[in-house]
Amino acid sequence: MGEFTHLVVVKFKEEVVVDDIMKGLEKLATEIDSVKSFVWGKDIESMEMLRQGFTHALMMTFGTKDDFTAFQAHPNHVEFSATFSAAIEKIVLLDFPVTAVKPITA
Amino acid sequence: MGEFTHLVVVKFKEEVVVDDIMKGLEKLATEIDSVKSFVWGKDIESMEMLRQGFTHALMMTFGTKDDFTAFQAHPNHVEFSATFSAAIEKIVLLDFPVTAVKPITA
Repeated sequence: MGEFTHLVVVKFKEEVVVDDIMKGLEKLATEIDSVKSFVWGKDIESMEMLRQGFTHALMMTFGTKDDFTAFQAHPNHVEFSATFSAAIEKIVLLDFPVTAVKPITA
Repeated sequence: MGEFTHLVVVKFKEEVVVDDIMKGLEKLATEIDSVKSFVWGKDIESMEMLRQGFTHALMMTFGTKDDFTAFQAHPNHVEFSATFSAAIEKIVLLDFPVTAVKPITA
């Protein structure tokens, strides 16, 4: 069993202060040890036709799928999920075991 | 300027042999030095409502945005893009500078 990634592609509602959401996510990722890595970004490049209105991508990676399952049930995650859900206009979620062709190195 | 990620979320056409596409992508990522990392995965977890028909995520990361721009113009990429485009039923692309809250380590 290898690493497991939780990928979120999202468009936030217009009135949402994205910085506040990101601060909440950063806190979550920092507090919960099983989050092995957390990176995110805001699209600055792709054509509107190809990004289809989505603006942000968030990727949390865990050492194992079990770590991800535990993360989902963590009270801090459950609490933050309510805030996050209220902020989104649309979302795509994918959860997958990572196949590393060229592994990521720091 | 930091790292730059090219994220592709995709649903392939039913008749497509996904392994062949992935082999093509692996070749591309291996041949082109500016591709710093390449990881991908097939969703095994999220609910259909949340993944909205998308099945695979591909993430290529570059040292800089300029490396990504050069990659896009690389003849091998241009050539493979035609094959890839013909294989997809739907796609979302996001291209973004990476904000690493918990940096990824090998």
